[in-house]
Amino acid sequence: MTKGRLEAFSDGVIAIIITIMVLEIKIPEATGWTDLASLWPKFVSYILSFMYVGIYWNNHHHTFQAVKKGVNGKLLWANLNLLFWLSLLPFATGWMGEHEFSRNPIIFYGFILVMCAASYTIMLNVLKKREGEGSVIAKAVGSDRKGKLSIFIYLLGIALAFIHSVLGFLMYAAVALIWLIPDTRIEKIYTGEDQSEQ
Amino acid sequence: MTKGRLEAFSDGVIAIIITIMVLEIKIPEATGWTDLASLWPKFVSYILSFMYVGIYWNNHHHTFQAVKKGVNGKLLWANLNLLFWLSLLPFATGWMGEHEFSRNPIIFYGFILVMCAASYTIMLNVLKKREGEGSVIAKAVGSDRKGKLSIFIYLLGIALAFIHSVLGFLMYAAVALIWLIPDTRIEKIYTGEDQSEQ
Amino acid sequence: MTKGRLEAFSDGVIAIIITIMVLEIKIPEATGWTDLASLWPKFVSYILSFMYVGIYWNNHHHTFQAVKKGVNGKLLWANLNLLFWLSLLPFATGWMGEHEFSRNPIIFYGFILVMCAASYTIMLNVLKKREGEGSVIAKAVGSDRKGKLSIFIYLLGIALAFIHSVLGFLMYAAVALIWLIPDTRIEKIYTGEDQSEQ
Amino acid sequence: MTKGRLEAFSDGVIAIIITIMVLEIKIPEATGWTDLASLWPKFVSYILSFMYVGIYWNNHHHTFQAVKKGVNGKLLWANLNLLFWLSLLPFATGWMGEHEFSRNPIIFYGFILVMCAASYTIMLNVLKKREGEGSVIAKAVGSDRKGKLSIFIYLLGIALAFIHSVLGFLMYAAVALIWLIPDTRIEKIYTGEDQSEQ
Repeated sequence: MTKGRLEAFSDGVIAIIITIMVLEIKIPEATGWTDLASLWPKFVSYILSFMYVGIYWNNHHHTFQAVKKGVNGKLLWANLNLLFWLSLLPFATGWMGEHEFSRNPIIFYGFILVMCAASYTIMLNVLKKREGEGSVIAKAVGSDRKGKLSIFIYLLGIALAFIHSVLGFLMYAAVALIWLIPDTRIEKIYTGEDQSEQ
Repeated sequence: MTKGRLEAFSDGVIAIIITIMVLEIKIPEATGWTDLASLWPKFVSYILSFMYVGIYWNNHHHTFQAVKKGVNGKLLWANLNLLFWLSLLPFATGWMGEHEFSRNPIIFYGFILVMCAASYTIMLNVLKKREGEGSVIAKAVGSDRKGKLSIFIYLLGIALAFIHSVLGFLMYAAVALIWLIPDTRIEKIYTGEDQSEQ
Repeated sequence: MTKGRLEAFSDGVIAIIITIMVLEIKIPEATGWTDLASLWPKFVSYILSFMYVGIYWNNHHHTFQAVKKGVNGKLLWANLNLLFWLSLLPFATGWMGEHEFSRNPIIFYGFILVMCAASYTIMLNVLKKREGEGSVIAKAVGSDRKGKLSIFIYLLGIALAFIHSVLGFLMYAAVALIWLIPDTRIEKIYTGEDQSEQ
Repeated sequence: MTKGRLEAFSDGVIAIIITIMVLEIKIPEATGWTDLASLWPKFVSYILSFMYVGIYWNNHHHTFQAVKKGVNGKLLWANLNLLFWLSLLPFATGWMGEHEFSRNPIIFYGFILVMCAASYTIMLNVLKKREGEGSVIAKAVGSDRKGKLSIFIYLLGIALAFIHSVLGFLMYAAVALIWLIPDTRIEKIYTGEDQSEQ
């Protein structure tokens, strides 16, 4: 089986997830600037989630670029599991934005981020096992330090949210910034391209 | 005619169906954990439907992998018929989740599952006729025992829902678990791949 | 320019149009069968519109199959014009379904169908001019009798709706049934395939 | 890395953006023609935004046609930045349509248009740097007069909105009309095709 349809389907789902999140930002009933400005928690939440979905699409793109063998059942379901958790991001984003970063929604958002990250790690392991130890994927993924670091910072953010919910949000934003640097682990090995050109 | 656009269009529709279901889970108006927890019937319904849509996409992927001849009008409409019934899953899911698995929504959900399964069987028969008796599709589909078994269990679930609605839900969940094992009938014949590797 | 991206974009838009129409069927607030049954005008409207969007996708598929030359600006905009009118179908469907086939929504639905058909004819003419007189498209389209007949029946339906709105709906349904027979004009000439096999 | 998946993902997001805007046009609660007619500001807003999203897709199509080198991280994020601002168009369109072109929504809509245009310029510069000075992209983009002119007219529109909001809307509509003429800068150089045939 080829990877093309799995990539296309994932692209479709991710494109819809990234776009329906904007539907949570309801149109103000009045036309004052304050009416618009009062939506700032929703806009800030949307920006963070847009970045996260963009990061996942970006990494998905990089990872499957390195996939040489076809797709089997395990990989299909590992990928669907990732899409499932990503599909809960619009809900978590809406809850967080609706209630101006109060504690519980922040913790729930962090939980969804942890589940997304864990699902990605599971998918990478399925890929690594399938592609084999000497494969580009296996070399590139390595010990997946960036993924483990992310989960650690998410959990730290959840813990800090008990002190002040905004601290949790800042932790999640910090992880997003780390990932904005594209997943050069794979890119470097696969393309042999000079990283400085990135 | 090539199968590429039919696959791409089906992927698009299925990707949207799987994603808009999450819009039925409305954001809680308060921030308590109990507010979130009270949504559990919607989450459980969503998980089951996500699995079902994933299964249909998965099987669609496998089946069309084995299609050698192009697409004709009959196949296009058999495929659109399948997409039609799948497109009613978000509605059925929402009704079931909104009313905490009360009897009628459970029965209706089962009815939609039966129609989806029957539509898939119709599509397989159109494919089998087109591809010919000796084709991969014809061999792989065989007597379509898994499909017939599914419809039987759905009908059993509908009947059991008259005793207790949760029994119906459990039957539907059981069928989903059967299908989580990918449609190896086709995979085995087509790829000659060792099934144990799955 | 290649036609691939235009086809993919059109598939995406059409896939979303066909799927968001189901969002107009709101989940009943109670669980009685009568609550579900009272939605029948919405279901019937949805079925008709699903068929129409399927027909347009089907014909789009057939037509672009025969396109040999690339895509230019005029064709891009003729295609976007078609997608624009198709994108109003969910709104027209919802209005018709919400008000149980009362006259004005039926007339408006007919108007949208006329505009979709006219847009398709415009697109075919752009294609014909681009591909040249001796092209497959030009031969296949011919005098476009089926398209002209459809517009005539739509207008008849609009007129009959002033007598009884259901007559209008029946006319629109009749046109859909005519088109369920795939656009064999192109298929026959292009593939040389025996039509009886269809 | 190939540009195919970036194009496919962008097509998906743009297809969803162009389609969900229609969801802002709520179905009238009554069936009178006046009920439909009262929605005219929403329809007019939708038409303009549909044209703009069509223009961006069109230009995206043309631009990436000329891309010879693969996709790197910077380009991925420049493209996601463009998609982010485009994804706010449905919100801005809804606010403008809901309040019948009152001043603040008109100004906000203009602001989103400025950000979209600026994002496109940024993306073109990333492409130009990557493709090199002598590349088709670099030649075609040139001094990007059309892009700069657009931003100037948007800003003029925002300023004129303080006199009368409709003047702002007319400025935005004027820019759309300028762009309806496809981006022939690239088309001419790339295809060497006779422009008069366009």
